[in-house]
Amino acid sequence: MQNQPIYLKAITLKDISDVDSIKDDAKKHMILIVRITPMAQKDIETLRKAIDDLYNFVKSAGGDIARLGEERVVITPPAVKIWKGIHDLK
Amino acid sequence: MQNQPIYLKAITLKDISDVDSIKDDAKKHMILIVRITPMAQKDIETLRKAIDDLYNFVKSAGGDIARLGEERVVITPPAVKIWKGIHDLK
Repeated sequence: MQNQPIYLKAITLKDISDVDSIKDDAKKHMILIVRITPMAQKDIETLRKAIDDLYNFVKSAGGDIARLGEERVVITPPAVKIWKGIHDLK
Repeated sequence: MQNQPIYLKAITLKDISDVDSIKDDAKKHMILIVRITPMAQKDIETLRKAIDDLYNFVKSAGGDIARLGEERVVITPPAVKIWKGIHDLK
């Protein structure tokens, strides 16, 4: 991994089925910026479950996950740490 | 660098003087997610200059820079590449 670039990808969580492709990308050690508003507007309960699922998945893989304002969530691989304070920012 | 973690930091561009601290963080090989809306609402011409300045700085350092929706800009160090298609996403 060390000399290969890390990729940063922006994606949108529209449907619960997108969670699997997000996990696949996370397994490839990508940095993911996930826009959650389409699902937030549709079904807040499903969104909550999807975020919980992703949170547990990312944390057990040694990665990091944080909210980025109202609209997005950031997921990082173990090699990338989210700077403290991001949770307070919008 | 290789075994040290890369940091991802969310920051806000409020004033033209923030450009220097963004450059300082970029020099430290951080991934920066910069919220530009406060300056966009205040002075769009200054924002344009700030973005141009950051674009030239980041590109000449071998990094990557892209818009993330209406509100944010992502800046990455040479070790992190922004996935193609991010420009189309909001």
